[in-house]
Amino acid sequence: MHPARRPGRPLPDGFVAALQGAFGERVSMAEAVRAHHGRDESPFDPQLPDAVVFAHSTEEVQTVVRLCGQYDVPVIPYGNGSSLEGHLLAVQGGVSIDLSEMNRVHSINAEDLTVTVEPGISRKQLNEALRDTGLFFPIDPGADASIGGMCATRASGTNAVRYGTMRENVLGLTAVLADGRVIKTGSRARKSSAGYDLTRLFVGSEGTLGVITQITLRLYPQPEAVSAAVCTFASMGDAVRAVIETIQMGVPVARVEFVDSLAIRSINRHSNLTLREAPTLFFEFHGTESGVREQTETVQEIAAQNGGEGFEWATRPEDRGRLWNARHNAYFAMLQLKPGCRAVTTDVCVPISRLAECVTETEADLIASPLPCPIVGHVGDGNFHVAILIDPDKPEELEEAERLNRRIVERALRMDGTCTGEHGVGLHKMDFLLDEHGADTVDTMRAIKHALDPRNLMNPGKIFSWSA
Amino acid sequence: MHPARRPGRPLPDGFVAALQGAFGERVSMAEAVRAHHGRDESPFDPQLPDAVVFAHSTEEVQTVVRLCGQYDVPVIPYGNGSSLEGHLLAVQGGVSIDLSEMNRVHSINAEDLTVTVEPGISRKQLNEALRDTGLFFPIDPGADASIGGMCATRASGTNAVRYGTMRENVLGLTAVLADGRVIKTGSRARKSSAGYDLTRLFVGSEGTLGVITQITLRLYPQPEAVSAAVCTFASMGDAVRAVIETIQMGVPVARVEFVDSLAIRSINRHSNLTLREAPTLFFEFHGTESGVREQTETVQEIAAQNGGEGFEWATRPEDRGRLWNARHNAYFAMLQLKPGCRAVTTDVCVPISRLAECVTETEADLIASPLPCPIVGHVGDGNFHVAILIDPDKPEELEEAERLNRRIVERALRMDGTCTGEHGVGLHKMDFLLDEHGADTVDTMRAIKHALDPRNLMNPGKIFSWSA
Repeated sequence: MHPARRPGRPLPDGFVAALQGAFGERVSMAEAVRAHHGRDESPFDPQLPDAVVFAHSTEEVQTVVRLCGQYDVPVIPYGNGSSLEGHLLAVQGGVSIDLSEMNRVHSINAEDLTVTVEPGISRKQLNEALRDTGLFFPIDPGADASIGGMCATRASGTNAVRYGTMRENVLGLTAVLADGRVIKTGSRARKSSAGYDLTRLFVGSEGTLGVITQITLRLYPQPEAVSAAVCTFASMGDAVRAVIETIQMGVPVARVEFVDSLAIRSINRHSNLTLREAPTLFFEFHGTESGVREQTETVQEIAAQNGGEGFEWATRPEDRGRLWNARHNAYFAMLQLKPGCRAVTTDVCVPISRLAECVTETEADLIASPLPCPIVGHVGDGNFHVAILIDPDKPEELEEAERLNRRIVERALRMDGTCTGEHGVGLHKMDFLLDEHGADTVDTMRAIKHALDPRNLMNPGKIFSWSA
Repeated sequence: MHPARRPGRPLPDGFVAALQGAFGERVSMAEAVRAHHGRDESPFDPQLPDAVVFAHSTEEVQTVVRLCGQYDVPVIPYGNGSSLEGHLLAVQGGVSIDLSEMNRVHSINAEDLTVTVEPGISRKQLNEALRDTGLFFPIDPGADASIGGMCATRASGTNAVRYGTMRENVLGLTAVLADGRVIKTGSRARKSSAGYDLTRLFVGSEGTLGVITQITLRLYPQPEAVSAAVCTFASMGDAVRAVIETIQMGVPVARVEFVDSLAIRSINRHSNLTLREAPTLFFEFHGTESGVREQTETVQEIAAQNGGEGFEWATRPEDRGRLWNARHNAYFAMLQLKPGCRAVTTDVCVPISRLAECVTETEADLIASPLPCPIVGHVGDGNFHVAILIDPDKPEELEEAERLNRRIVERALRMDGTCTGEHGVGLHKMDFLLDEHGADTVDTMRAIKHALDPRNLMNPGKIFSWSA
């Protein structure tokens, strides 16, 4: 077993001096700065890095990584801190490389529908920069995450049913490897068969193979017309059937989100709305004026055939905004169901044919639990989140949340699904990863990790253990 | 350097006996069978494997791979033999595992739009099996390739502009690793963030990391309506501008293919047609009746604005069939421009904004060459093929073809493109891969190969050299 560095061992003096020599005031060992970088949106207790460096270029990241290699110090890349799975916790100490100041747009190529950016830019900053081009970047995980972090966790969100995930939308990237070498993967061509797909290997590698310092993304034309619709159903099963039929008809729905009664109640309270407290689907359609009308009419018909009620649609931006803002604020609305709570958020994804069954069985678990547990789902992808609301001061509530999560994951795996649709493995799901893929597949991942990071310095302790 | 096995060394007696014991008549060492498996559609001279085994299951593949490991014998997976890059040549001898009898459909999940198949099934066999489901598998590289081979080379073809490539359409797979272990990657969920993307690592690995024995694919609803259109332009530049505007308008064109004057002439002769001999675009549109009409009208307008002439469109299946059959037969039509010839096929792919420039400069090279060189292109992806027609008995013609190819690749790389859009690296482009990605990136691929196949037995000598 590799002698992994343990937290608490002070940084070597020579290392700190070298870091300060290279970065001056952009190195911080202040408690508050380290505390900010040793936590994320997960319910885990913070684990602080020993130092934080604010990097400004690939070359600077290379300098930090080389120094860390020289002194055997772990490296943790940091974007916007919106991880839900403990990715940013310095479980073996080390240096957090804050990339938030590397947030420039390197180049926009409107004819090719590509943009090349630094990893610290957030998705909202990116879309702001694209505003006058007629193009947009659709991946929307809810939080205003950094593009680098979205790459590292293979993020997706509400638009994935139409536009795919980070897996489909990263064309190439630049990464600093554990030994300090810089590699460029992919190209600006839309497709390539040139060797192993290192781009896809880094997308979803959660910082464990290197630090991503530049990313080329696919863009999409802003749709000529957009409409939104909302509709309630007697049960999750009816709602899912409507979605399956919609997709089988080839309707290119841009978003379709499930929100359960409890989540609707929280949204009503938070956004001062009067939505009917029932299982609800939110739709969004993108296309030409007539295409959007046709999509909406088709879906309205399908919804009616599945018992959908109160189908309401909106093409005016302010009406659409009202509906979708409510959905977007669901996470914060749900937190307000239990003042002072934190959420343990599950993230399973199953084949859509099993989704109704999976959610229905899960609802039975949740009703039997003392904790409030609203559900929202990216139903077109088969991905749903239960926000299990716990009092952070009551360990028994965390334990109950873990029990519920475990049951939900076991159920999803039985149904040929995955323990994580879009949040990543991080610290929280290392055992589930083994259950999902089996030891030989995880061993194969481990062999790649050992080959590219033989001293276990790149975000150690995440995704899987160093030794089998 | 690893002592790679050299061809010509006879197979160990114990190995042959063990293979025959396990597979009986499904092992062949007959010259004709070996000759069939030691060639492909590339212009390379055949290099025969020492034996061919016809496998029927993952377990049987595992048996062959384990025996090969025990006796230090290379393994080459074989599907339908339609590779264009020498992937199947036994450059270090060894055993060709013929997977063509593993061509079953394991399960179709219509609600999830997924199918799980064995690797030997061809794309036409698959679509035949899907016919009554209302679904189809869109990836169409022209040849009736095996799905396993299409995975291994990250194939795409005429539909990729709308439906993506094998990269986007493989959800998960089963593979036998070099050490005989069987891994399952991915799941049937549409998306996942569960660990390293081993699925995408195997897609495009050209048999060098293991043998793919089962594949889960995404399917799509058969469109309600399909229309086709054809239009000629004064130049490639005008045609490409029309395509760029089409894509920027968000028209979800299903296919858009460029065919140059010489290729049109060959098609006219071969299919007995009277298409105008000019740079031509072939379009196909998928959608609802009204959606397809709208798409066609929009594109007709854009084509006219770019000097397009003779815009002709067809919704009746027989008329569409006539147009697209002509395009599909282009490869064989082009071969008939020079009786007895073979084609050296280039495969560069560039950002679409550089495509016109890339093709125009290439046309100047081709005009100056004594060889006939028709061009066809998947213009929506920036990918085009020059079929350089050579007399296989004249080494100077092969040399001239290589010179042209080298110039085309160098040009594409200067334009931020790739040496191979869809055919793979194989034997032919190992140097180009280095030029494209640089030594450090190829070293990273090599480190993965060394980790997963430490004795270099899986399709050795392909993609990159074993040692730097």
